[in-house]
Amino acid sequence: MSRITVEDCHKLVEAEYPLAVYFGFRTEELGEGRARVRMAYSPKLLRYGGTVSGPALMAIADFAMYLVVLTLYDYDAAVRAVTTNLNVNFLRPPGRHDIVAEARVQKGGRRLCFIEVTVFSDGDDRPVAHCTGAYALPAEGG
Amino acid sequence: MSRITVEDCHKLVEAEYPLAVYFGFRTEELGEGRARVRMAYSPKLLRYGGTVSGPALMAIADFAMYLVVLTLYDYDAAVRAVTTNLNVNFLRPPGRHDIVAEARVQKGGRRLCFIEVTVFSDGDDRPVAHCTGAYALPAEGG
Amino acid sequence: MSRITVEDCHKLVEAEYPLAVYFGFRTEELGEGRARVRMAYSPKLLRYGGTVSGPALMAIADFAMYLVVLTLYDYDAAVRAVTTNLNVNFLRPPGRHDIVAEARVQKGGRRLCFIEVTVFSDGDDRPVAHCTGAYALPAEGG
Amino acid sequence: MSRITVEDCHKLVEAEYPLAVYFGFRTEELGEGRARVRMAYSPKLLRYGGTVSGPALMAIADFAMYLVVLTLYDYDAAVRAVTTNLNVNFLRPPGRHDIVAEARVQKGGRRLCFIEVTVFSDGDDRPVAHCTGAYALPAEGG
Repeated sequence: MSRITVEDCHKLVEAEYPLAVYFGFRTEELGEGRARVRMAYSPKLLRYGGTVSGPALMAIADFAMYLVVLTLYDYDAAVRAVTTNLNVNFLRPPGRHDIVAEARVQKGGRRLCFIEVTVFSDGDDRPVAHCTGAYALPAEGG
Repeated sequence: MSRITVEDCHKLVEAEYPLAVYFGFRTEELGEGRARVRMAYSPKLLRYGGTVSGPALMAIADFAMYLVVLTLYDYDAAVRAVTTNLNVNFLRPPGRHDIVAEARVQKGGRRLCFIEVTVFSDGDDRPVAHCTGAYALPAEGG
Repeated sequence: MSRITVEDCHKLVEAEYPLAVYFGFRTEELGEGRARVRMAYSPKLLRYGGTVSGPALMAIADFAMYLVVLTLYDYDAAVRAVTTNLNVNFLRPPGRHDIVAEARVQKGGRRLCFIEVTVFSDGDDRPVAHCTGAYALPAEGG
Repeated sequence: MSRITVEDCHKLVEAEYPLAVYFGFRTEELGEGRARVRMAYSPKLLRYGGTVSGPALMAIADFAMYLVVLTLYDYDAAVRAVTTNLNVNFLRPPGRHDIVAEARVQKGGRRLCFIEVTVFSDGDDRPVAHCTGAYALPAEGG
């Protein structure tokens, strides 16, 4: 079971994460160790060539990873977790559609949480990007 | 010598890259195979905990990499180059300062250009993030 | 359908890849865009602490990726493909068991082939390492 | 100043790391947060096409990273440190020469140590591979 609700995520984003508001991230589904996030298509996301820019795809992937952490750990620790490493492969140019990121935990350790994210252009089941990374949980008493 | 001027970069960003306008990327210096970009501090870049968010750091790194490609290759090809892989390590939380990204080419091949970016919090010479990645040049005649 | 047989792989390894002989890689299964490889447990694979060393896990992951390329492309091109990027996350220390790597293609492009590998300690379905990477196919006529 | 000597490294390798013996790693220089390692050219390192194989380059990079950790932390902790993430870009095929890896710390934190390694083919100052990664120090009392 997730330790956080979709509604809590919306509140956290509005209060604490202006970039997520700008990108229009919408948490669609949360479960223990998994999250699905949508970013509505908008011309403001494009880069040269009319495709959704790499940084927008990385931003939604990182956000989906953060949600996975929030589903797994005590809220006070999870909310302070920080990305230590993120690796992205860009597989195909996304079309002019919504972007959907599906994240799932690979290993939820005491100090590091490893997460995998597959990013889709809505309506196409071939991924546009694949991302792996790690969040570090705050040191106990830290 | 760079194949593109700082002035050309400003025009390209304004015409083609709304995210770079939102983030406030400012190209400061270009040379053959290197670029320095600044992102002015703004509360809109923050995440929980009051530190500049990871996606903002990844966005400036990716943008600096793109500029390096533009300094090295024929403009019509370079502008269509796309990121294939990007890896970031987050070393320290940046303070509430401007962010400066310094990129330099590692290998400018015919098909792939490998680039390294070191990201600083302005006024501190210890990097906040380090990034490596590759851009793919469009296929000839492609 | 795979473009190469398990038997062909064994011959290629013996003729061309002494490290694979040293590590004892054994191709177990090949399909179009996927491969499974086993490395028999041996004390010579260990590092300090008595766990299978990271480089042994990376070597089997890279080899499984290479096999995936061989299943997908014309042999003369595939055999000359080279790794351009490889990223590994080490999730758990493997026990003193055989290591099994399962690789599958993420995107088989004309110039780059992106592949994902999950590495297991035999008998445990929780991965010990997860790897993504890209192989570059030789330029046509190259 | 390094917390470990070159002589200590040789002993550690011989006692604990058979792969390093197989690859013929030779620690050439150690300083606080930096290490240089050589791998003598040998046909057993080659892959198809007659170039030093990717896994051999990753192995020397990972080993050089480990030495950097040993130069920085208390020996009993450092020797138990484990790689959590390693990312390699392969820039050029190495020739039939010795391989030299030069590693330096990027950030030596209490829990994670980030390290960068540049790998050369001896006699050529253009790198053949570039690697970044992190080692996790054991938990205190762990």
